[in-house]
Amino acid sequence: MPEVITNIERIDAGVIAGLAEAGVATVHEAQGRIGLLGSRLRPIYAGARIGGSAVTVSVPPGDNWMMHVAIEQLEDGDILVVAPTSPCEDGYFGDLLATSAMARGCRGLIIDAGVRDVRDLTRMDFPVWSRAISAQGTVKETLGSVNVPIVCADELVHAGDVIVADDDGVCVVRRAEAVNVLAQAQAREAKEAEKRERLAKGELGLDIYAMRERLAAKGLRYV
Amino acid sequence: MPEVITNIERIDAGVIAGLAEAGVATVHEAQGRIGLLGSRLRPIYAGARIGGSAVTVSVPPGDNWMMHVAIEQLEDGDILVVAPTSPCEDGYFGDLLATSAMARGCRGLIIDAGVRDVRDLTRMDFPVWSRAISAQGTVKETLGSVNVPIVCADELVHAGDVIVADDDGVCVVRRAEAVNVLAQAQAREAKEAEKRERLAKGELGLDIYAMRERLAAKGLRYV
Amino acid sequence: MPEVITNIERIDAGVIAGLAEAGVATVHEAQGRIGLLGSRLRPIYAGARIGGSAVTVSVPPGDNWMMHVAIEQLEDGDILVVAPTSPCEDGYFGDLLATSAMARGCRGLIIDAGVRDVRDLTRMDFPVWSRAISAQGTVKETLGSVNVPIVCADELVHAGDVIVADDDGVCVVRRAEAVNVLAQAQAREAKEAEKRERLAKGELGLDIYAMRERLAAKGLRYV
Amino acid sequence: MPEVITNIERIDAGVIAGLAEAGVATVHEAQGRIGLLGSRLRPIYAGARIGGSAVTVSVPPGDNWMMHVAIEQLEDGDILVVAPTSPCEDGYFGDLLATSAMARGCRGLIIDAGVRDVRDLTRMDFPVWSRAISAQGTVKETLGSVNVPIVCADELVHAGDVIVADDDGVCVVRRAEAVNVLAQAQAREAKEAEKRERLAKGELGLDIYAMRERLAAKGLRYV
Amino acid sequence: MPEVITNIERIDAGVIAGLAEAGVATVHEAQGRIGLLGSRLRPIYAGARIGGSAVTVSVPPGDNWMMHVAIEQLEDGDILVVAPTSPCEDGYFGDLLATSAMARGCRGLIIDAGVRDVRDLTRMDFPVWSRAISAQGTVKETLGSVNVPIVCADELVHAGDVIVADDDGVCVVRRAEAVNVLAQAQAREAKEAEKRERLAKGELGLDIYAMRERLAAKGLRYV
Amino acid sequence: MPEVITNIERIDAGVIAGLAEAGVATVHEAQGRIGLLGSRLRPIYAGARIGGSAVTVSVPPGDNWMMHVAIEQLEDGDILVVAPTSPCEDGYFGDLLATSAMARGCRGLIIDAGVRDVRDLTRMDFPVWSRAISAQGTVKETLGSVNVPIVCADELVHAGDVIVADDDGVCVVRRAEAVNVLAQAQAREAKEAEKRERLAKGELGLDIYAMRERLAAKGLRYV
Repeated sequence: MPEVITNIERIDAGVIAGLAEAGVATVHEAQGRIGLLGSRLRPIYAGARIGGSAVTVSVPPGDNWMMHVAIEQLEDGDILVVAPTSPCEDGYFGDLLATSAMARGCRGLIIDAGVRDVRDLTRMDFPVWSRAISAQGTVKETLGSVNVPIVCADELVHAGDVIVADDDGVCVVRRAEAVNVLAQAQAREAKEAEKRERLAKGELGLDIYAMRERLAAKGLRYV
Repeated sequence: MPEVITNIERIDAGVIAGLAEAGVATVHEAQGRIGLLGSRLRPIYAGARIGGSAVTVSVPPGDNWMMHVAIEQLEDGDILVVAPTSPCEDGYFGDLLATSAMARGCRGLIIDAGVRDVRDLTRMDFPVWSRAISAQGTVKETLGSVNVPIVCADELVHAGDVIVADDDGVCVVRRAEAVNVLAQAQAREAKEAEKRERLAKGELGLDIYAMRERLAAKGLRYV
Repeated sequence: MPEVITNIERIDAGVIAGLAEAGVATVHEAQGRIGLLGSRLRPIYAGARIGGSAVTVSVPPGDNWMMHVAIEQLEDGDILVVAPTSPCEDGYFGDLLATSAMARGCRGLIIDAGVRDVRDLTRMDFPVWSRAISAQGTVKETLGSVNVPIVCADELVHAGDVIVADDDGVCVVRRAEAVNVLAQAQAREAKEAEKRERLAKGELGLDIYAMRERLAAKGLRYV
Repeated sequence: MPEVITNIERIDAGVIAGLAEAGVATVHEAQGRIGLLGSRLRPIYAGARIGGSAVTVSVPPGDNWMMHVAIEQLEDGDILVVAPTSPCEDGYFGDLLATSAMARGCRGLIIDAGVRDVRDLTRMDFPVWSRAISAQGTVKETLGSVNVPIVCADELVHAGDVIVADDDGVCVVRRAEAVNVLAQAQAREAKEAEKRERLAKGELGLDIYAMRERLAAKGLRYV
Repeated sequence: MPEVITNIERIDAGVIAGLAEAGVATVHEAQGRIGLLGSRLRPIYAGARIGGSAVTVSVPPGDNWMMHVAIEQLEDGDILVVAPTSPCEDGYFGDLLATSAMARGCRGLIIDAGVRDVRDLTRMDFPVWSRAISAQGTVKETLGSVNVPIVCADELVHAGDVIVADDDGVCVVRRAEAVNVLAQAQAREAKEAEKRERLAKGELGLDIYAMRERLAAKGLRYV
Repeated sequence: MPEVITNIERIDAGVIAGLAEAGVATVHEAQGRIGLLGSRLRPIYAGARIGGSAVTVSVPPGDNWMMHVAIEQLEDGDILVVAPTSPCEDGYFGDLLATSAMARGCRGLIIDAGVRDVRDLTRMDFPVWSRAISAQGTVKETLGSVNVPIVCADELVHAGDVIVADDDGVCVVRRAEAVNVLAQAQAREAKEAEKRERLAKGELGLDIYAMRERLAAKGLRYV
């Protein structure tokens, strides 16, 4: 059953760039509050904001062999998305694999497991969102799969899906939805800019969003 | 039962400033090692140190409606303290709410749940201590209460209590105790300065605190 | 049974410096993927990389009395390694103890519990790897032991063992193995430098490590 | 500050018995979905259902001295409610303390820490809801308080509050609310009996509660 | 976007019965070690072993409205599989919903959240595998979806997939694979019976599986 | 480095039987409150109480090959004690391995990982203390070691150490200490019997242990 899907579809780079620019919170809202990976995935350093096409990797616990296989499948603008088949926080990825991935245009790594050499990765500007930081070494004995659908941190990811990641976490957008989600995200941002200005001047959300009547109807009492 | 208490009592700003200056560890010790909120609350960025009067908010899981209600109750120098009625790590608060809170003089947010837009919050210098960072959106359907006593991260907080927060975590001081705790904190700091100097010169705590005899009496053996 | 072992053996400072330079991931690999302390120990600030001889401390939960006893046993180049006898995240250590430890040449603290005054510790350049950051104060009532073997974060540490700690976590090297591990670490680094260069040029790990045949033999299919 | 409040008020035994009979889920609903202690408290054996007046105990981590003090304050029908001042899972309580507590009419123990001798406690029919089962011994060195308000598993408990505990967990009812909550609970049970019968016959909640229209109005689509 | 898919496909009851009979561990192995839901799902009582067709439910945190909607979609032999859209352990389900579900032929509930009335559910022989036991009540305000694909405890489940659950946990089998997996499971069981007999007589796995040579080749030393 | 130590020393069966009879809590106290394995190890069924000589196994994550190797090293009265080299909760052990282990006289399994076929193990009266119950299958690719010292659930265990396990958890006793610990345990039990009787009659621990004076001296106030 272990297999590598070699010809995955990716979407337009401009759309991906737009989604990355919008950021995780906006994209997540724009697509109806779905697609967020679990908050246990945290960036190894602050400030990175990336978008890219998912190259998915299903790996056994404690075995990073398939990372090498996956790197060959990377194209410029891709993001590695890795999930172990059972919970594991070993360090599947470090500076050598990052060097190799960057040489193929990879923009970052999302992994529901551990990562190591984080000082080097930080210096290389190679962002990682992981469940753990751990130097624990892995073996190369058991196969997994590349570019099959995986569940990563409680969310389904297909190869070629758009991944957006920043300090708020990681979000996935289905390929077929990406153009529409981008439009929604940009509309949302426009609307937010106007609200931000009003709020900054001291106007209240209670008034901007006309909440007072509904709060009273639900029974809120002021004492 | 959902209600908003509108006229809470706050204490003197100078006392609050003194407690903030002393910091969490000192204040916690000064009041007899009580008042510390659970260590699961972590700052979204390092270096912030704030003090203020608590405006408390009890919210349902996955519903941030009451945040808008609470913001209207904020006065200059207040700190929002938020607890969900059951464990939740959704992102109740982001840059728009922070803009609104800052416009009313709010100094920061303590929340036993999630927060989002953390890059923006960092740029805005709006400090948050939270249980999680999560972009997960929330609804506005169910009421909660503002300025009632809440349990936040295993500690009881009343509206108007003094909150002190820094890189070590979050501490609460009862209004009626604040003046006394400040005095104790300042006395403690004075004493610590002298000890710090002696320790820096190589004198041992064993000698400064005269511990050797009691250690021996308890049975400590040197081998 | 509480006791303080006073004459522990330490190894050559040059070997320790070499291991610290190699870093946690390399040392861990060089000694056969053993010796890593649990990933729940995280540095209080990024960028520190230290090596030193372990002075071990077994402490009761919520009681930091033995920290004072341990500090007297420190020599230049030592690292405090502390484990509570049952799970605890109280703040056993702060800026005063750090001042005292630094006065004796201590290079850092590894503690499977909590630490406080982290802003001060950061300013003092005193690195700590801990399970929690917590201001929770402790008492001085119950004895423990110094320089006995302890289990810290699921790993056995003897007094005088070499500790290496950096952003990837914490690793322990037995005294008798240190010279050999350093040689292995340096050999590994030399080999990695050459591979890094080839990977940076776009060569694949699949080819450098000649993995393709074995992958096929195991049954990997490309689709 | 450590103190023992000796004359606490308790409410009518019949009201308490009624609340125990109603059980945790019903009582929690009857008082407006409040008062539930955190789900980390689990019974050491299945099937116990108790109600009683809280005798609260605040204990230091790893120190069970105050348990002996608290037992003297027990009256017939009381329940011990214990919270450590910082997270701890040591075994504060075993068969000897249970023997002593039972001799004074105690009905059970709620503890946000550990318990031991669980086989004996089970044989003695002394029910315990705890955070952990652990044989870890504790010391008797540091004072705490008895019958002061405590936060136990994220919920505030006053001495004399009514505690209800069963396989679903633990719930607290304020003294002043108990009579009213019991009335609400009994009304709820009566209503539920009728609904249970209709549901058992195959009628749907959608129809009994007339939900279809509101679901459609909210936009639910059937495909 | 909230929707209810009403006409899902189910597979032959005999195949499902066979898979249930084989049990979770065998089915999981028979299909190549995939399909296992996370071990955080535990049965509320020991000894249940069920198989059925999944009726999936995606619910908001703290809101069990869609449970009523889902029950209408149940047919004889179905199993409810429920996942909240963000982590939640509230009690979504109790004895009334169980009564209703049983009236429609439902065999059990798999829920990555909380459940309550567990004593009643146990008496009713209605098995539940859940993440928590919690009496925490929920609201009925926000829509979700029924019979869409969901991720439950880190595993993807489609409506109509076969669910097998027993004391070892929960496993999902894709509809199209079920017949084949059953055949593999039965073959595996036959083989295991023969091995069990040999092992019971004292023969070693090392010999039965002819492992000694490969162990030696890998370098295992006996000392 | 992987190796199997074949000739381990065990102690007298009568001493082991005495320690098992005393149980975990008593043995742990009798040896000075040391030796307890972490409370994350829980029995798969209630009521088992065993003692035996440890056969230790160090296993890679997700790989149970060494279990077969370890079984050959078992003698009558032994207990398998297994720790993975990095955190893992896969199901390393099920009914076939249990059949084989029982055929060699093994009394039970202690494993800081997962176990499966728990219904069968319960029927076979083969007790297990584990970190998780999980059907997740493992591979047989990577070596580990048998009868080397291991850290299992935060406690050091040597081959031949005495293991005592019951509903309270798991405790280890060093071989050289076992006779002495047994004597202490029996003395403790004798003393406890007398105290239990006095407590059952209503005498207070405060009086039996003469605590009142020391409590007052420490400053306890009765209000």
